Amino acid sequence: MPKPEVTNIKLHNMLNPKQYDLILASGSPRRKQLLEQLDLEVQVRLQEVDETIPDSVPVTEAACYLAEKKSQAYSCEHNNELIITADTVVVKNDTIFNKPSDKIDAKNMLVSLSGSKHLVITGVCMKTLNKTVAFSCSSEVKFKNLTDEEIEYYIGKYQPFDKAGAYGIQEWIGYVGVEEIHGSYFNIMGFPVHEFCKRLQDF
Amino acid sequence: MPKPEVTNIKLHNMLNPKQYDLILASGSPRRKQLLEQLDLEVQVRLQEVDETIPDSVPVTEAACYLAEKKSQAYSCEHNNELIITADTVVVKNDTIFNKPSDKIDAKNMLVSLSGSKHLVITGVCMKTLNKTVAFSCSSEVKFKNLTDEEIEYYIGKYQPFDKAGAYGIQEWIGYVGVEEIHGSYFNIMGFPVHEFCKRLQDF
Repeated sequence: MPKPEVTNIKLHNMLNPKQYDLILASGSPRRKQLLEQLDLEVQVRLQEVDETIPDSVPVTEAACYLAEKKSQAYSCEHNNELIITADTVVVKNDTIFNKPSDKIDAKNMLVSLSGSKHLVITGVCMKTLNKTVAFSCSSEVKFKNLTDEEIEYYIGKYQPFDKAGAYGIQEWIGYVGVEEIHGSYFNIMGFPVHEFCKRLQDF
Repeated sequence: MPKPEVTNIKLHNMLNPKQYDLILASGSPRRKQLLEQLDLEVQVRLQEVDETIPDSVPVTEAACYLAEKKSQAYSCEHNNELIITADTVVVKNDTIFNKPSDKIDAKNMLVSLSGSKHLVITGVCMKTLNKTVAFSCSSEVKFKNLTDEEIEYYIGKYQPFDKAGAYGIQEWIGYVGVEEIHGSYFNIMGFPVHEFCKRLQDF
């Protein structure tokens, strides 16, 4: 087994060469888990942010717009901090599917997504005192024809009211119902870790 | 919250309408987890199986061939049992990448997979006393250019000697290195759950 100290130094030089203190400004436990799977330490910082999107923003740019808007609500507390904000949207037929308001709304969303393809777009903003970078990553998801029984079982048991498009790909419905994806699985879960690593190395 | 009894009856009628006792004949903890995420109960049964593949079997059929060969080693103990066997192979340039024998072998595999696309094929065999069905599912994985440092960090910390192709997509290297996939993420992890559900419903 390698000595942990050696491993951690190697990792820091690789993924986070400037050794930023990474601040995740998101309440999503999934995003925190995804970042921790990179073996990076992340602190969570949270405050209220207005998440409305003006009608003038195209749907495919909404996630990036919101990630930047969230970022503006936060200030770096010192030189070495890098603040990460993100937003994930589900898009079908030029329409954004947000978090469902109730069971009926969730069911309508899943009926719309059933038997067809849609996009999941995650926007990310990375900010230090001197620099801000925003980008987005888009992945395609194809659902099989979901039955009413399957949709009702999933909503009843998994209560997906905190999830854009009323589903989590890492939950039952993702196992039973997703035929294929094209792009990054982790982006669909809520954070494009591969793209974030590349940007962090170059930041 | 729904009553658990109602939920379980609904689930059984949906995914496992003939209420088979599902026997997973695989020692892979990942496969067990994948099946359990379907909310199905699975028992594990294990015995020694010869896993050699004759040269006459095409590489793209090797996973299905091995799943069937493993299946032949097991017998249904009663009428209601459904035995599940599976095998996952990584294929690039008409060559199968098996589990690496040591660090050097693992590094060579990851160097070969770096900066390019390969296929992950999982073969599955489902067997009852009266019926046997085998199928395979193929997904494409694209790695970015992995650095030597990244490959060495991953092998040192994650010891991927039990994994075909020397990597797990659900581990660090999958987060940092996989740019995109085309197909089923769970198939790449080792079991095509969506396809299995469809087959179980029709079995």
